[in-house]
Amino acid sequence: MRSQEIQRLIQQIARLPGLGPRSGRRIALHLLKKPKELMVPFITALQTAFEKVSICTRCFNLDTMSPCSLCQDPKRDTSQICVVEDVTDLWALERTHVFRGHYHVLGGVLSAINGVGPRQLSFEALFRRVALPETQEVVLGLNATLDSQTTTHYIIDCLKPYNKKISRLAYGIPLGGELDYLDDGTLTTAFKSRQTV
Amino acid sequence: MRSQEIQRLIQQIARLPGLGPRSGRRIALHLLKKPKELMVPFITALQTAFEKVSICTRCFNLDTMSPCSLCQDPKRDTSQICVVEDVTDLWALERTHVFRGHYHVLGGVLSAINGVGPRQLSFEALFRRVALPETQEVVLGLNATLDSQTTTHYIIDCLKPYNKKISRLAYGIPLGGELDYLDDGTLTTAFKSRQTV
Repeated sequence: MRSQEIQRLIQQIARLPGLGPRSGRRIALHLLKKPKELMVPFITALQTAFEKVSICTRCFNLDTMSPCSLCQDPKRDTSQICVVEDVTDLWALERTHVFRGHYHVLGGVLSAINGVGPRQLSFEALFRRVALPETQEVVLGLNATLDSQTTTHYIIDCLKPYNKKISRLAYGIPLGGELDYLDDGTLTTAFKSRQTV
Repeated sequence: MRSQEIQRLIQQIARLPGLGPRSGRRIALHLLKKPKELMVPFITALQTAFEKVSICTRCFNLDTMSPCSLCQDPKRDTSQICVVEDVTDLWALERTHVFRGHYHVLGGVLSAINGVGPRQLSFEALFRRVALPETQEVVLGLNATLDSQTTTHYIIDCLKPYNKKISRLAYGIPLGGELDYLDDGTLTTAFKSRQTV
């Protein structure tokens, strides 16, 4: 009934993460109603990103240049490498302005269930970077989920021979968190890692 | 920090209905990670829809031809016009196969709060179609929200002079509904409109 062109657009939108057939229909219709105002800038943004954005060969960040603007920034500290799972995590850390070193994007975490082994992630490139004399500290900035923690332990094991400082983000109560609403794991970790004041 | 091209793509995605900055980042990254597999077909679908889809000059449906395939279908009953708010409502009714007449898409409902008056909707075109001798029944297929019901009453008033049969969808308990979970308005309506069996 619906024309093939509309159907195909809905399918493409519905395939995006977090969306489905209903939101696909809604968004497609929203775009089709104002083609010039909405579709043209959207297509342009996609096309430009497709043509210009690529993966940084050094840290696996996404950028319009490679090595990326972070790797090329002379103001950033080359002695520190923060390992993150994904580019979104890099963006999240950058928003805080807490870290001024370099990054390394793994591209995921080890997962037996999803069939992700060490070869699917950018470990080799990470180890080569850690081996450089300029590297002094590796900050493990992975998530606190089970698979991510496993990956953190795996990296710690692999990095031991390099004799560099290795650190990981602190686990504990998130700011604004209330004890009564926290899960037992977080509470236990926060208690065990209590700090003398 | 993030390159302008990525930033612009995220903004474009975040502007879509139901999405925001977080889902914008997530979807942009999902697309950027597999540009050839995901972005190319997405851009193609958007581009094709942009070039080929337009609004039907008769019933205001979206299609690749105008008048649309429904208006051109000789098997459909030209004596009945079903008035709907939006193209999604037309699609929803078409999925049920319950109606074999023609449609008329209003493009919204009257709303004092949103500043939508009769001139913003396709009333004039509807009245011209109702005036045609072939039109025998107008089915009002609008939603059951307050603004939609106001619009339904407005249309009923405007259509009276044409002396055509006017009907509206039945209000009542949705199939599978349980009395205890229904709002009072639905229950009252269902009771008042009770049918002799």
